[in-house]
Formats: sequence, structure tokens, C-alpha cells
Amino acid sequence: MQIDHIGIAVKDLDAAIEIYEKILDTPCFKRETVESQKVETAFFQTGESKVELLGATSTGSVIHSFIEKRGQGIHHIAFEVNDLDSEIMRLRNEGFTFINNEPVPGADKKRIAFLHPKCSTGVLIELCESIRTP
Amino acid sequence: MQIDHIGIAVKDLDAAIEIYEKILDTPCFKRETVESQKVETAFFQTGESKVELLGATSTGSVIHSFIEKRGQGIHHIAFEVNDLDSEIMRLRNEGFTFINNEPVPGADKKRIAFLHPKCSTGVLIELCESIRTP
Repeated sequence: MQIDHIGIAVKDLDAAIEIYEKILDTPCFKRETVESQKVETAFFQTGESKVELLGATSTGSVIHSFIEKRGQGIHHIAFEVNDLDSEIMRLRNEGFTFINNEPVPGADKKRIAFLHPKCSTGVLIELCESIRTP
Repeated sequence: MQIDHIGIAVKDLDAAIEIYEKILDTPCFKRETVESQKVETAFFQTGESKVELLGATSTGSVIHSFIEKRGQGIHHIAFEVNDLDSEIMRLRNEGFTFINNEPVPGADKKRIAFLHPKCSTGVLIELCESIRTP
């Protein structure tokens, strides 16, 4: 299991992109809006993993609530898995709980599911699987 | 610049190791105490990066204060750089501030320095360089 990305909740996506381009010394390579989550994302490649900035596109977004409650900061870590359904089954059998009953579409052509942070020392962990296009 | 590790602050290191061994489906490969930081660390390999659990060894540890204030969760992201001193100079020239005036020894045979989170959208970012043994 490798880190696919780290998701960082930011207030102002444009300003944050400028900051992370400097820190990471690499340009943002993709911006993508995920309508279902009411977020706009911006990606940076860092080795085999990515940094994903997350900006709310409306006050109904979970990213908006997260920032209201905790301020800007790391929102989740995502691990890439080969077979999401079997990983979900493996972890459920170990007693873990998922926020999603079923995987949902994420940014970057992925199917994703979130472990409940109460099972993972307060960390929001996403498992993601690349959607293979035929 | 690639992700070296994600640091997660936990209350009970032994219990957290058991949890992350299940989630990541890989054993903890190293435990190490960093006396100067008053933390005990536990590492898991996840692709080219690692997950580092951080448990306080005394109430004077920054990890103890972090958990008191924010609860358990992600404490920092660390990026591996080839030349820490030149990265610090590059980022200072870009207007960034570091918590450390000079790099300090970290776990896992590294020299490390932390960017001030006020410069990086609330995220505590560590830059680290492997100490080369002659």
C-alpha cells in the first residue's frame, strides 16, 4: 500500500497553489472540480505521491465545515490499493468501520472510500483505486 | 521532492501500532526514541514513503501538547530533500519562515527543519535530509 496523496484543506485555492508551488518547487499539474463533494482540487507531484489541495466551492462542502471547525490543514491521507472492494472487506473483517457503505467517485479518476477516523487514531484515511479505462 | 513520511500524533503508541499494522497491512519495522523531542516513534513502510507514529514520552513533549490541544491526528508531513541547507536558503529567499534557525537531528538518521505553519496554510511541514555515514 503506498501513499497516493495527502489532502490539504485550504481557504483560498489560488493563493495556496502559489504557496505550494514555491514550497514543493514544482508546478500544479492539474485542477479538477469534484461536483459531488463541492470541492475544487489542485495536484502537485511529489515522487510517487501527490499533494492535493482542497478548496470548498460552496458553504455546503465538507471542506468548508472542516476549515470552520479546525482551520486550514491536513484533511486526509489517501493510500492507493489494487482492489478497493477486497481491502474494504479485509478491514471490515478486522473490525474497522467505513464512512461510505460503498465506494464513491473521487478526483483523479479514482474510486474511493474513507475509514472512520474513530478507528484510525483521529486520522481520516482514504483508500483509493484507479479506475481502469478499457 | 518526495514525501519521506507522514507523522501522526497518537496517545498510546502500542495500541496505535496494532491499528496501523492492520490498516496498512504491513508490520512496524522500527521503533526509535528521540530524546531531544521527548517522543517515541514507530515506522511503517508504505511505498517509497513511511508512516511515522509519534507518542509522547513525557508531558513536556510537543506531541503531548498537540494532543491536549487538537486531539490525536496528523502532526506533520516530511519531504526528503537532497541538500537541506540549500532548500532552507531557497525558501527563506522566497519569504518563508522556519521554526528552527538551524537544522536539528530527527529520527531515522535525518537532519530536519520545520517550516512555520503560518507560511504553509496551517500545515506543519518538515524538510529532511538523510545523514550520510562515511
